[in-house]
Amino acid sequence: MARIVTDDVIRDALPMREVVKTMRMACREQAHGSLYAPPRWSLDVPDGSLVLTAGAAMGVGTMGFRAYETLGRGPGHEGLVAVWNAEAGYFDGCIVGNRVGLLRTAGLNGVAADALARADATTLAVLGTGPQARQGARAVCAVRDVDAVRVFSPTAEHRETFAERMPEKLGLDGDAVTAHDGPEAVVRGADVVYVATDSETPVLEPEWLDAGTHVHTLGPKWADGNELPTAVFDRADVVATDSLNQVAAYEGEGGFVVDDWEERVVELGPLVVEGVERDPDAVTVFCSVGLAGTEVVLADRYLRELERKEE
Amino acid sequence: MARIVTDDVIRDALPMREVVKTMRMACREQAHGSLYAPPRWSLDVPDGSLVLTAGAAMGVGTMGFRAYETLGRGPGHEGLVAVWNAEAGYFDGCIVGNRVGLLRTAGLNGVAADALARADATTLAVLGTGPQARQGARAVCAVRDVDAVRVFSPTAEHRETFAERMPEKLGLDGDAVTAHDGPEAVVRGADVVYVATDSETPVLEPEWLDAGTHVHTLGPKWADGNELPTAVFDRADVVATDSLNQVAAYEGEGGFVVDDWEERVVELGPLVVEGVERDPDAVTVFCSVGLAGTEVVLADRYLRELERKEE
Repeated sequence: MARIVTDDVIRDALPMREVVKTMRMACREQAHGSLYAPPRWSLDVPDGSLVLTAGAAMGVGTMGFRAYETLGRGPGHEGLVAVWNAEAGYFDGCIVGNRVGLLRTAGLNGVAADALARADATTLAVLGTGPQARQGARAVCAVRDVDAVRVFSPTAEHRETFAERMPEKLGLDGDAVTAHDGPEAVVRGADVVYVATDSETPVLEPEWLDAGTHVHTLGPKWADGNELPTAVFDRADVVATDSLNQVAAYEGEGGFVVDDWEERVVELGPLVVEGVERDPDAVTVFCSVGLAGTEVVLADRYLRELERKEE
Repeated sequence: MARIVTDDVIRDALPMREVVKTMRMACREQAHGSLYAPPRWSLDVPDGSLVLTAGAAMGVGTMGFRAYETLGRGPGHEGLVAVWNAEAGYFDGCIVGNRVGLLRTAGLNGVAADALARADATTLAVLGTGPQARQGARAVCAVRDVDAVRVFSPTAEHRETFAERMPEKLGLDGDAVTAHDGPEAVVRGADVVYVATDSETPVLEPEWLDAGTHVHTLGPKWADGNELPTAVFDRADVVATDSLNQVAAYEGEGGFVVDDWEERVVELGPLVVEGVERDPDAVTVFCSVGLAGTEVVLADRYLRELERKEE
């Protein structure tokens, strides 16, 4: 029986560690070739686009797509994820809203943090305070024993609200999340740095990063506009991404921030399956670009959870 | 407020003439360049595909897509049409099911029949008895004063059920729809011939068609598999289609049934705007291939009708 729900229904339906686990499974399918994840496709209208990102995970046996528009944000600007059984073709349902897209991104970053961050990482720096920054902090905390989170965003109110509200969401003491009035104090000494901004100019200096730091970049990653300085990529031991297909698609948009990406950037799926040997004194970077099909795998997981709860 | 409905809600929400009118408006937008209708896009899985056909009509101010799968048919195999405002980006809603896709095809064929069939056409031949044949008969009857419908399908039960049930749907006398045990008696003397089969071999002989007949073909139209004989296209004065973009996409699938289509096939949009001068003794053909964006225009029309009825 197909289920058509809005995404407030899935808000607390699964703990973040289950979201990360589901995305890890999708990464394994990617490594084994059973995840079909073509680059995004878009319909361009004068003021923006309707974006469709379709995919199938033949291991789980699900296929579908996410659709969203770039004309505006906020209430009323819902996208949707629709899911079909990939073998028999039955329609499984549809989740209206933007939450699945947001959570799969956080989940994939959780998988990356688990694969790349040092096992003893305890300090998390967050640059940005939007939904991606908030869910990303949850994802990192789901895979590492984080005991201190430091946040910076240019708007004082945003970073203070983050510091006030996030401890509960992260399962940390009330004073474990601190807001700072500049990025340097946030980044220096952090084990994991989570960069989730809209900035097209670098938001940190490479020398602020200690040996052994793991960095996530979710925001702009073009050759001519990037939130993370190119020197960080140059210095990194491992630069990983969730989708080389999607990185390749940057070629049509002015190029990816790592110009020799074909030699340097590795895919998360194989890293998850084969494990990573990393220099403990090196920096590692995860470039989150959006692996198609993962929204469908996560939506399928939520629909099955809703079914289970009704039984 | 976004509306998410299943398509039993729209079953009788609009009369067929309103569906045809809505599709005529979309054709006008196509002629004037304000309909964005790229070819279909599909995600291929081992046993079939998930097909996405997106489009926008900037005159109406709507954008969205239809999604459907080719793995199976019938209950459980629902597709959906999702609609956003194309200027502000607000999500308008989603209609789950396959009815919008079916009705927009019938509606476009109604537009074509109105543009190409003789004004005094009264006799309709239908080859095929599936949903496309049934809705197509409604569409032709919505634009011409049809008083006799003749039907053939290889399965006696199918054609007899059609003859029994369709008079009411078409607003005709109980004996106005007759089933025949071969295609020739159906096609000979008909003013409009509606071919909606799955056959990859011709289902009629060219010489059965009288001068002045208008023919619709909805089924297979490949160079190496077509329900309508190529001689009918050769003989036709006008060969029209709803989407040359979609006809061009046949190139990747073995070629379109009309090999010189670039010279010979004209688009319905301009025909609707400019009118047609046709030789009354010639045959005309409409090749229904599926104009992207029209499902979105029709779904938008239904969502607005549902809103109106609630007020």
